[in-house]
Amino acid sequence: MPTVSIKTFSYHPSIWPKMIGDASRDAKSGDLVEVLDKDGATFGWGFYNPRSNMPLRIVKHGAEAIDEDFFLRAIQRAADLRRGLFHIDEETDAYRCIHGDADQLPGLVADRFGEILSVEITTLAAWRRLETWIPALHEAFGTTTAHIRVDPHLAQVERIPGHPHPLSSTQLRRVKIREHGVTFEIDFAEGHKTGFFCDQRDNRRKLAALAAGKTLLDLCCYTGGFSVHAALAGADEVTAVDLDEKAVAMAKRNANLNQARIKFTHADAFTWARTMVENGRQWDIVLADPPKFVTGRDDERGRGKYNDLNRLAAQLVKPGGLLVTCSCSGMVNEFEFEKLVTTAVHKEQKRLQIFDRTGAGPDHPTLSNYPESRYLKLIWGRIL
Amino acid sequence: MPTVSIKTFSYHPSIWPKMIGDASRDAKSGDLVEVLDKDGATFGWGFYNPRSNMPLRIVKHGAEAIDEDFFLRAIQRAADLRRGLFHIDEETDAYRCIHGDADQLPGLVADRFGEILSVEITTLAAWRRLETWIPALHEAFGTTTAHIRVDPHLAQVERIPGHPHPLSSTQLRRVKIREHGVTFEIDFAEGHKTGFFCDQRDNRRKLAALAAGKTLLDLCCYTGGFSVHAALAGADEVTAVDLDEKAVAMAKRNANLNQARIKFTHADAFTWARTMVENGRQWDIVLADPPKFVTGRDDERGRGKYNDLNRLAAQLVKPGGLLVTCSCSGMVNEFEFEKLVTTAVHKEQKRLQIFDRTGAGPDHPTLSNYPESRYLKLIWGRIL
Repeated sequence: MPTVSIKTFSYHPSIWPKMIGDASRDAKSGDLVEVLDKDGATFGWGFYNPRSNMPLRIVKHGAEAIDEDFFLRAIQRAADLRRGLFHIDEETDAYRCIHGDADQLPGLVADRFGEILSVEITTLAAWRRLETWIPALHEAFGTTTAHIRVDPHLAQVERIPGHPHPLSSTQLRRVKIREHGVTFEIDFAEGHKTGFFCDQRDNRRKLAALAAGKTLLDLCCYTGGFSVHAALAGADEVTAVDLDEKAVAMAKRNANLNQARIKFTHADAFTWARTMVENGRQWDIVLADPPKFVTGRDDERGRGKYNDLNRLAAQLVKPGGLLVTCSCSGMVNEFEFEKLVTTAVHKEQKRLQIFDRTGAGPDHPTLSNYPESRYLKLIWGRIL
Repeated sequence: MPTVSIKTFSYHPSIWPKMIGDASRDAKSGDLVEVLDKDGATFGWGFYNPRSNMPLRIVKHGAEAIDEDFFLRAIQRAADLRRGLFHIDEETDAYRCIHGDADQLPGLVADRFGEILSVEITTLAAWRRLETWIPALHEAFGTTTAHIRVDPHLAQVERIPGHPHPLSSTQLRRVKIREHGVTFEIDFAEGHKTGFFCDQRDNRRKLAALAAGKTLLDLCCYTGGFSVHAALAGADEVTAVDLDEKAVAMAKRNANLNQARIKFTHADAFTWARTMVENGRQWDIVLADPPKFVTGRDDERGRGKYNDLNRLAAQLVKPGGLLVTCSCSGMVNEFEFEKLVTTAVHKEQKRLQIFDRTGAGPDHPTLSNYPESRYLKLIWGRIL
């Protein structure tokens, strides 16, 4: 097997160019390689791509050798976790099957939407192996049709061929899925976004359990996941706002599919919320699930948006009502997010009685040697 | 109303002696006082006790005045949260009714165990108000009998009278409670400890949902909460170990009450686990829920215990099995605990695929201005 040596000791699965030492002559882009430490001893096994921004992706540490079958077993292990241990099929037919590094399959993210396997590829090594992996994924997860996407910029960086993968269906348009008894439509026609984030599944159920008889404001409602669940659980009145016109159109379709009564507004959440504050409007529960605001370590503007949105949200909650606030910015860790939120709430002369902190569902695991991959954070509290 | 001024600005509910300025002449121990900032403006309202280690406990910030009725409304708000919003009575008759500062009732912690209200008092102010508070608590939570405890050392510091409170029953011995369909016995005869921590309720159910058909090792099983739930959920074989002989005796009674088959061992978890590692024994799931190891900010010995226990636990998990590891040390925050656990697991040349992080149930809220009060942390992962 080809070898690549590393100069710096790190258990992190992603190895940067400056950490790479020599590679054997036969080490080619997309290869599974043996990784050597600076003394020449086996450190682990990984995917190599010298032209990539991240030339080495460690699959497994330790001297015990792995071969291509390791990945087929990793697919089976991923299915065992979701289907065997979590009994996820009893709850939904929309879930994350493979979560990249965390499932020892760097560069492969796969979601199941009913019979469709929605695949996103970010490494050449994963792309090269799809002919073997896709049939194994279909068998492990009970899917029949694959929809394979590669980000065009990443395709260039990783030197992944531009043409569609022969195993990717081009006929797909819309498919319906069920989550805890609620129906949602997934749209593959829009290219990158399917309009559905399965990572919030358990949080949608959790909100629904709190919503009966309550008024709910859903800020940045996207395609209506939280709102539809809450309306069906008996919320008294649901108001949902989003700036993305297409998302609101999908949200309306999702509401109609479930005969859920929701007042949708296509508007900028900040501007709209400011008007509501001026009008003295308040709700029993305010949910804020904005897009990723913080894109860099020093992105103070993004952090400011969390402050602004949470100050507005806190003012829109009735005294004794609930604030449920989310962040999907991986750059903001759980502690920093809690600090941002509580500072915003305190600025409004209110306190938050926090009764839960949650994250992505268990089908989105993280690795102990890659804690930064934990991106989704929710804080649940009562305004005092 | 008497006034007390503070020299330092802090939203924290506990104000240390060095932060206190002048007090008005009529400000007496146990009083509800108006708190002034250094410019003499109203900063908030709190309980005063100049002889205490913590002479001022802020109940509410802001200029809006509060009186004794505020606390009766706080009791009602606490009941609304648990019984109204969480529908907790559908799950159990054992839960935390009042969680001190987080429910705006500094010095009062109250758990419901069936018809018994188990109360722990840590401030003179709370002690003085029990004649009004206890009837209000009974009405709000449907209890009939109070059991009131004060730590003897704290009683001295706070100058709380040493004799039992007239509203405290002295006849109580044992009572049975139900949690998610499982029966547990609570023992008031042992004084301080009732033998039951309701903060792990949701985690016990979560473990039970993963345990069917699996072998489980419960390290530091205490009175058997996790083990009994797992055995009843269909665990193949449950082994439970604890050093506390009385706890093991209670755990056996709890197992018998539910006709749960569990192998109990009265032994030191460290010594016993080391022997099992030497014997090559492994389980599908290993749970470690030790007592509070870290008691001070610089307690390196306590931190070392988490390292040792988690290294042993990781070795006792079958490949692909689960490690569920807990810490109730308030001094170790969630990030530090995850670091301690993952370092221990990595030392054993294993990785943890973390699929959840949880804490105490929602009947144990924390305040946004008192984040350190979040003490219980659990990490759920699969050993890779």
